[in-house]
Amino acid sequence: MKKLELKETLTNAGTKRPLSRFARRLSRAWQRLALPFDARVVVAVSGGADSTALLLAFDELIKAGRLALTLRVAHLDHELRGEAGAGDARFVAELAGALGYEVTIGRAAVGRRAAATRDNLEQAARRERYEFLGGVARGWGACAVAVAHTVEDQAETLLLALLRGSGARGLGGMRDRRPFDERGDELLLVRPLLQRARRAETSEYCAARGVRVRADEMNKDEQFARVRVRRRLLPLLETFNPRAVETLARTAGLLRAEADALERLGGDLLAEACREGLSGAAAGRAENGAKGRRAADEKGSLANETDALEDAPPLSVEVLRGADAAVLSYALRGWIKSGRGNLRRIEATHIAAVAGLLDGVRGGRVAELPGGARVERRRGLLLFRAGTAGAGKG
Amino acid sequence: MKKLELKETLTNAGTKRPLSRFARRLSRAWQRLALPFDARVVVAVSGGADSTALLLAFDELIKAGRLALTLRVAHLDHELRGEAGAGDARFVAELAGALGYEVTIGRAAVGRRAAATRDNLEQAARRERYEFLGGVARGWGACAVAVAHTVEDQAETLLLALLRGSGARGLGGMRDRRPFDERGDELLLVRPLLQRARRAETSEYCAARGVRVRADEMNKDEQFARVRVRRRLLPLLETFNPRAVETLARTAGLLRAEADALERLGGDLLAEACREGLSGAAAGRAENGAKGRRAADEKGSLANETDALEDAPPLSVEVLRGADAAVLSYALRGWIKSGRGNLRRIEATHIAAVAGLLDGVRGGRVAELPGGARVERRRGLLLFRAGTAGAGKG
Repeated sequence: MKKLELKETLTNAGTKRPLSRFARRLSRAWQRLALPFDARVVVAVSGGADSTALLLAFDELIKAGRLALTLRVAHLDHELRGEAGAGDARFVAELAGALGYEVTIGRAAVGRRAAATRDNLEQAARRERYEFLGGVARGWGACAVAVAHTVEDQAETLLLALLRGSGARGLGGMRDRRPFDERGDELLLVRPLLQRARRAETSEYCAARGVRVRADEMNKDEQFARVRVRRRLLPLLETFNPRAVETLARTAGLLRAEADALERLGGDLLAEACREGLSGAAAGRAENGAKGRRAADEKGSLANETDALEDAPPLSVEVLRGADAAVLSYALRGWIKSGRGNLRRIEATHIAAVAGLLDGVRGGRVAELPGGARVERRRGLLLFRAGTAGAGKG
Repeated sequence: MKKLELKETLTNAGTKRPLSRFARRLSRAWQRLALPFDARVVVAVSGGADSTALLLAFDELIKAGRLALTLRVAHLDHELRGEAGAGDARFVAELAGALGYEVTIGRAAVGRRAAATRDNLEQAARRERYEFLGGVARGWGACAVAVAHTVEDQAETLLLALLRGSGARGLGGMRDRRPFDERGDELLLVRPLLQRARRAETSEYCAARGVRVRADEMNKDEQFARVRVRRRLLPLLETFNPRAVETLARTAGLLRAEADALERLGGDLLAEACREGLSGAAAGRAENGAKGRRAADEKGSLANETDALEDAPPLSVEVLRGADAAVLSYALRGWIKSGRGNLRRIEATHIAAVAGLLDGVRGGRVAELPGGARVERRRGLLLFRAGTAGAGKG
């Protein structure tokens, strides 16, 4: 196999030269994240400066004996960039080989999944990429997937969320460590560069290691909102506050902590409303058992309720009414997510409409949700109706 | 007294022409705010479009019999704008007179209170203005002071807070109804235009009522961050999202609700930590009573504690340790505010330093606060030390 000719600085990473500052910071971040010294880690490498720097810094630490990770490099060619894309894949494969790590290159025709706008394309590419990374990691028995998001990414993510409109939950930043997805296994997603590393430093580090990274043309395409945020909005914000990037990233972290607290409290409220709701529903059924014709109607409804009961049980209106508006929002979102499987297309207005059912004393009212599901208020309970069969989940 | 010549549209507001849309929206906002139909209200009028529109719309509603408010117009000449400022005051006085309302014009030499920067000048002017308005309202027995902040003001306030760096509390928007200040009486501050009214509409409405408003030269002075936000940042954001202003204002409202929930939870946590803390401190004193020399030392400390006890009682470390990070921050902020009198110059880093005292098992550690106060961890308690006499409060 033909090896890439690399500068001496790259292959001599194992000699007794002092560790670079960039690598030392990565080492500290790894410790702060409480990750094993000898973990099996998939590193997602696009070929751009951030992810290449992450790989090179892991490599520096491994060859200096500061970490004993087993790495596998993973790269997904989205087939959006034609020849350039194929060139990225080759670069990543050769770099991995030169450093001595196994590599998995994937290909996915993201462009063919019709995407309505450029930003939808970005989201579709992201979903493909994460499916790919999860597959590689699980197939290989990795404990974590490492991605190279930096402080700038955190700031840009916040600005994009702000432009879309969100509470703390949407504005809260990316986490530096979290479960990879909702599959419930132990696989982690980690972002060791997120707290401290700046984009200028990743470029610098790659250059210092003698590696010429790939240019990502998509990063110049101003049809992407993220690119306009980076090239136009952030520079303007820096005229107000030269430390805008760090400030925004810090705010994203604060909001994330606040959203987490509210999420937890929302969960507590939901549990309480379920407990009271189930006893209320049971009482309702007992009462109706005694009434002839209405009982037949109710039985039909109760049969419908039974499906929902497992995922989104009836909630006590009284319990919910006493709650803080913000905590209530989080509780309802969690409940709707259980009933529907996800929160796609659910906006603040839908949550507000459901919360509105709690006002006043009248039952029999309904709030419609996108996709056919709806929420009814009846007999002091909020009831989740999945709508047409199967429309609830998915 | 010489009356201002006003167009017929102004003086005929009481005739049976249909209400303007702007006035109808104000009427609905007044109801939503649950304010009395016949309240006694001080309206703060600068002479600019927003506050002039607010006054004229109240006037339209009163003369059409839709509201029976008793209005007093209030205007503070900050003496920052020389002749133009005096002209503003004359305009407001004449307008009030022409409409038939009493008016109080104040003068305050804000410029002479040395302000380090233009933005500090803006804040000093704001404080003067609110002191003035509170004085007028209380002297006259008003139930509320009405100010004319619009949706744009809400969006701009959020952006300025974002640039400074904040969690939900700092980013949360202005409220449309709140106690005027912390004096604990019933006086309210209300912003009836905040939820719906746009700056373009206020200008339009004044023109429709035949009133030519005063131009505020300070609104063109780009040395003020707020002016740069308005003239440069908002227009750029609108290229991303044409509805940026409404989106940001809505986010400010969501974050405000979230901050309120966390504030309340922080208060609950603080109360619990105080309860456990007081019994812990009492237990400590009982224990120390039995020990000779150390008791003398402790007595000295306890004497210090007694002062703090009234404002910022000892807190149980154990209770605080179990809490959510975000709720803990709010609890500590509330505690420090009680001990110190306010939170001026207190940053997230100070709160984090105090929270850091909760880590590990070692006592005897200290976190310094700006202004001389500090927080000590001793015997399973957090203790607030006011520092040099009088440095704590103020």
